[in-house]
Amino acid sequence: MASKSSINLSHHLNTLSRSRVPSPLKDIIKYMNEPGMISLAGGLPHPSAFPYSSLQFQVYSPEVDVVLESTDSAPLVDISLGKYSSPDHTNSLSVALQYGVSTGSKSLSAFLYDFVKRVLQPAYSDYEILLHFGNTDAWNKVVNLLCEPGDYILVEEYTYPSAQAVWAPMGCRGVPISMDKDGILPEALGRVLGEWEQVHPGTKRPHLLYIVPTGQNPTGSTLSFERKKEIYEICVKYDVVICEDDPYYFLQIPDYVPPSDRNPEGSLLPAEGERVTDDNLANTLVPTFVSLDYQGRVIRLDTFSKTMGPGNRLGYFVCNPLFSERLLRATEVTTQAPGGWSQSIIEEHLTTWKHEGLLRWFYGLRNIYATRRDWLCDMIFSAFDVRTSPNGIADDYIALPKGHGSERDAEKYIFSFSAPRGGMFLWIRLNLKSNPSYHTLKASGEAYPEGLLETKIWMEMIQEKEIFIFAPLCSTTDTCL
Amino acid sequence: MASKSSINLSHHLNTLSRSRVPSPLKDIIKYMNEPGMISLAGGLPHPSAFPYSSLQFQVYSPEVDVVLESTDSAPLVDISLGKYSSPDHTNSLSVALQYGVSTGSKSLSAFLYDFVKRVLQPAYSDYEILLHFGNTDAWNKVVNLLCEPGDYILVEEYTYPSAQAVWAPMGCRGVPISMDKDGILPEALGRVLGEWEQVHPGTKRPHLLYIVPTGQNPTGSTLSFERKKEIYEICVKYDVVICEDDPYYFLQIPDYVPPSDRNPEGSLLPAEGERVTDDNLANTLVPTFVSLDYQGRVIRLDTFSKTMGPGNRLGYFVCNPLFSERLLRATEVTTQAPGGWSQSIIEEHLTTWKHEGLLRWFYGLRNIYATRRDWLCDMIFSAFDVRTSPNGIADDYIALPKGHGSERDAEKYIFSFSAPRGGMFLWIRLNLKSNPSYHTLKASGEAYPEGLLETKIWMEMIQEKEIFIFAPLCSTTDTCL
Repeated sequence: MASKSSINLSHHLNTLSRSRVPSPLKDIIKYMNEPGMISLAGGLPHPSAFPYSSLQFQVYSPEVDVVLESTDSAPLVDISLGKYSSPDHTNSLSVALQYGVSTGSKSLSAFLYDFVKRVLQPAYSDYEILLHFGNTDAWNKVVNLLCEPGDYILVEEYTYPSAQAVWAPMGCRGVPISMDKDGILPEALGRVLGEWEQVHPGTKRPHLLYIVPTGQNPTGSTLSFERKKEIYEICVKYDVVICEDDPYYFLQIPDYVPPSDRNPEGSLLPAEGERVTDDNLANTLVPTFVSLDYQGRVIRLDTFSKTMGPGNRLGYFVCNPLFSERLLRATEVTTQAPGGWSQSIIEEHLTTWKHEGLLRWFYGLRNIYATRRDWLCDMIFSAFDVRTSPNGIADDYIALPKGHGSERDAEKYIFSFSAPRGGMFLWIRLNLKSNPSYHTLKASGEAYPEGLLETKIWMEMIQEKEIFIFAPLCSTTDTCL
Repeated sequence: MASKSSINLSHHLNTLSRSRVPSPLKDIIKYMNEPGMISLAGGLPHPSAFPYSSLQFQVYSPEVDVVLESTDSAPLVDISLGKYSSPDHTNSLSVALQYGVSTGSKSLSAFLYDFVKRVLQPAYSDYEILLHFGNTDAWNKVVNLLCEPGDYILVEEYTYPSAQAVWAPMGCRGVPISMDKDGILPEALGRVLGEWEQVHPGTKRPHLLYIVPTGQNPTGSTLSFERKKEIYEICVKYDVVICEDDPYYFLQIPDYVPPSDRNPEGSLLPAEGERVTDDNLANTLVPTFVSLDYQGRVIRLDTFSKTMGPGNRLGYFVCNPLFSERLLRATEVTTQAPGGWSQSIIEEHLTTWKHEGLLRWFYGLRNIYATRRDWLCDMIFSAFDVRTSPNGIADDYIALPKGHGSERDAEKYIFSFSAPRGGMFLWIRLNLKSNPSYHTLKASGEAYPEGLLETKIWMEMIQEKEIFIFAPLCSTTDTCL
């Protein structure tokens, strides 16, 4: 356990979050949840007025090592929840469907606190867990915690578009930081902050960095540990709060090995029958910003969306107690605690699985994504001549038309890419210089030839049904790989 | 069906909501949900990566007439949801736990649209339904849709404290409108708006009225149809948007009849065995503001919290298409759609129950609350001498110490109250003039004798366990009435 407490970062709070007071109603509910206390005026319906009498669900057995395409026949465990609590089962529908304190379930939060302590090992002692409705909800709450209209927010050069849609209408502005396949460049971040007063005289220096460190959407980049350390120190130097939006953290996968370099006997995945141990996964993950955070300046957003299903609408903050308390104040009067069905299902599920079951599930999931990443990259290798990228191009590989792999003019490549080391996205960068359609469009005087070309490509792919190859890491249909 | 469309109220939108653009991600998901379209870059996990394989729950049979204390032995119906859709059951966990469009389930929304059309009969034609996470979430979204910092908001004199906790930190200010047991006084509202420029020169006239029309928390007041009509016309005249926060709408109960006036043979509730018909309930409810709303200036907040359990975190807006579209834009980048477990459970449940089952459930619930209201009021009648209230006091009854009911000095009463006609709250107004402890505290020079007296009363009641009589309409414990 880290011994140092978080430092005081209250000067980062915006006017709105500084002005919030505890909800008078939630105060009543808090007292009411203490043993022996009862509701005075909370407007809590009696559980006999809930029409549901019990709930059962089936989840994969915690011993299952999930591998692609075998999950539907995997052994299951039955979990059920009755209407009322019993001495050996305190959770019940009467609890799940009642108003609760806005922190959500104490036992679910305690499970997650211990899991974070074991797997992420935050570098300060007084971190807290606060449940939220998923990382979209969480990021909105962070923006409303820290940002004033007109603020500049540090973001990745290709930031997650949906995250931008939160702060842009508030009148905030993004400061894009250059990035490559390994995420943002620390020196670019340092330069922007170091030259701020000079370049943007009279404006407030940005004090919030929004970052998706693992399998970033859309670029697929994953930050290395070295870069994380450098970025963290720059944020200490310039007093920047880091919002680490990390839904793909447990979907980190081993480096891609091109088919020609691969041992035909070997596999990147553990041999069949090899048991997953706690350390198999946890020790191969790049530590998080929270793991480096000796000051408590990181707000980590984690979610079950990518690992248990987005419809759970359940995730959690890891952050310092001051931010956690202010986020709770906002939660009380906006979303309230996450849905009771989700909370109780995930709580029962995780209590059954324990840490080991959860880690084993994550391990199985990442194997699925590794298989898909390999399948997709192998497809590109088989359809194109692929060469490693010369210096000066950020991506690892360039793809040339079949039979042109030995050409000396690297400008003739069709697209470049890097094999992702996590998440769900493979980012393909088209080389417009080599594209005749682009030159035709440009010569015709079109104002935005890139956009027209993009539409043309998508439409052709849709018509030829070849679009499927662009979505092999994830999908919403049952039939798609 | 009303034939008139809503009028254009876009000038009510605040800068934030006017600035919102559709989420680029949700646009992809929308296309993806069309037949034949697939995900391009939505980050949607494959359903084989959801660990849950099926769900079952038990809900009261739709034929059950719920009456107090008999619900736990009522007949049940089993509902289950498989992992994948089948031709005869399109809903599934693969759908429920996936990302969806932020509108939420189309079929649940369609059910609610039809239910609203049948029971509330909005007075304009193009109203829409949008799912939300419960009325706290919904009110927060309305404030962020319409209010600028510094705005004045029209509220009931004793407004719901938790609602105030949303706008107060934003720098908005409440304009309390006088009220009695029948809700706010239309003439008071008209006066405030009519004299606005004179009384508050140089400030923007309020353009939003927040109101809890049924069983208001904390006063227990319910607006009459006559008052609603007057209030609506005043809002038309002064161009005010009405936010109707109506969680207790279906918990309207018949007028209280004091024990001495009651037919000892009769009961306020339908005789045992009497079947509930559709019209029993719907035709005895005071029409809503939406039912009067020929312009589309009402945003109605409805929720399943008080009727199915607060933990569902599910409710819906009824409002004009312009407001609905802007609320959807905000939903996309904040909460996203309500939780998948809640949506699919409520959808399956309502599909099984149909309109009739739902109306019968509401009818049974209101009977429970009527019984409780009667029990509580009867307790007061038996413990005190109760007289109808003389003119000039807003409440219906005054309670005097036993044996003092014939005293001519009405100032000697201990407290006054009105029997609520809906909801969960009975508001008791202490008569401090007659309270010796209050006079002692005041004479001692205490700055806030009311607060000290309040604490003293609560503490004494907690110690004597008599506090139970203050929470008979609702509770969080299984044992409490």
